Amino acid sequence: MGNQTSDLVFGIHSVESLLDEGRVRVEKILALETRNDVRIERILVRARELGVPVERVSRKRLNACVKSIKGAVHQGLIAETESVHLADEKELEFRWPSMGEAPLCLILDGVMDPRNLGACLRSAEAAGVDVVMLPKRRCAPLSAVARKTASGAAESLFLVSVVNLARRMRWLSEQGVQITGSSGETLNGQESGPWNEVDYSGSTAIVVGGEEGGMRALTHKHCDQVVMIPMLGAVESLNVSVATGIILYEAVRQRGQN
Amino acid sequence: MGNQTSDLVFGIHSVESLLDEGRVRVEKILALETRNDVRIERILVRARELGVPVERVSRKRLNACVKSIKGAVHQGLIAETESVHLADEKELEFRWPSMGEAPLCLILDGVMDPRNLGACLRSAEAAGVDVVMLPKRRCAPLSAVARKTASGAAESLFLVSVVNLARRMRWLSEQGVQITGSSGETLNGQESGPWNEVDYSGSTAIVVGGEEGGMRALTHKHCDQVVMIPMLGAVESLNVSVATGIILYEAVRQRGQN
Repeated sequence: MGNQTSDLVFGIHSVESLLDEGRVRVEKILALETRNDVRIERILVRARELGVPVERVSRKRLNACVKSIKGAVHQGLIAETESVHLADEKELEFRWPSMGEAPLCLILDGVMDPRNLGACLRSAEAAGVDVVMLPKRRCAPLSAVARKTASGAAESLFLVSVVNLARRMRWLSEQGVQITGSSGETLNGQESGPWNEVDYSGSTAIVVGGEEGGMRALTHKHCDQVVMIPMLGAVESLNVSVATGIILYEAVRQRGQN
Repeated sequence: MGNQTSDLVFGIHSVESLLDEGRVRVEKILALETRNDVRIERILVRARELGVPVERVSRKRLNACVKSIKGAVHQGLIAETESVHLADEKELEFRWPSMGEAPLCLILDGVMDPRNLGACLRSAEAAGVDVVMLPKRRCAPLSAVARKTASGAAESLFLVSVVNLARRMRWLSEQGVQITGSSGETLNGQESGPWNEVDYSGSTAIVVGGEEGGMRALTHKHCDQVVMIPMLGAVESLNVSVATGIILYEAVRQRGQN
């Protein structure tokens, strides 16, 4: 069950997080043959402790591995891994009871840029989100670039691919989850209040829309309330991962987890 | 006085913000000759109203304009502008009295990636920051990519290039500004409390460190206090623009500007 995604992780930070986290099996590490980066050598010591095979290769070989990945910078280190596990909705329902009294969920509705997706996952993981829901047809791929930007969060978060988001939101409501959407605008006659005037201390789902146009109208309709982050200058909106971070850390603040 | 920076702004959002804001003079707009994007046509109507010359050009010409800019996507629209104005410290001192009772300042100490710089500026402008200080020798260039990521914020913010940051921080203290640094760690024996347990309602400067290593020790020393944003999962840190957004919006929340 679940989907296959890219199985290369590259860059010093990302490979290190991958090993530390241990949720995804690392098949092999390719490292630059010149041994003059202490950070790389430290990571390789750790890899060998974990029984992960390490192969020293030329810069040319490393470049070739990532050459099809736009904007990829391997920093001398590439890990070949099992694919990121994208769970299905059955698995969500199965694991739901074990998520405790007040789970914190994040729904990304239409984040289509892999860097933004990765950045949102990084913010979500840092804020202790229990599950991230990604609509199957309205989400960037969990590509190597997304995973790199996520700094290890794609491997450690519980990620669920959702076929019908409206139906899943109704299911969340039935579980007693309060669903808060975020938007700069007023839609369907719902007024948006400020992001910090909502109680996030109970079972909470936060819905963030994509780069273009934000949440869909149907998604909006299934929110219990919609909040906005005020723009006090001339720019029209925040980057989606920044907006996600601001709302999630308001939840962290209210939950007293700091 | 001031530094020269790139004078190309590209992409639909960025060019639109540039025109709306009106702080930087747009010399000319180059637009794709095929007229099938309503957003572009709307922006060109606005440009003509403002007396900005518009030239319809081929995709090849647009591509050539941005080809030296890594990762640039022009979306059919490029504006040639006056350079971003990076003020010097004399100008800061001159303008300081007009910033009101409780200015909100942001200091970026070592943000070396142009995308991160742009994203920090976007968050800062949205949060109503009065001035952003950039150390002359420890800051990414205000390149076209940085300006694109900033979505117009580089043109509308008051940006100051600072030669000696420690000296400028002492000056801020003399003006009664409370300086709060952000860090995941404890340094120089200073304990870091959570980001939301500081009072940001008065004259405030928030200092954010760079991607590698955070604030310098000397910068740390000149902070009145240091805060951290708790990492509740496995990732080690937030993206610098997300961390900046979270702290700035805690200030917005406390100041009741939402």
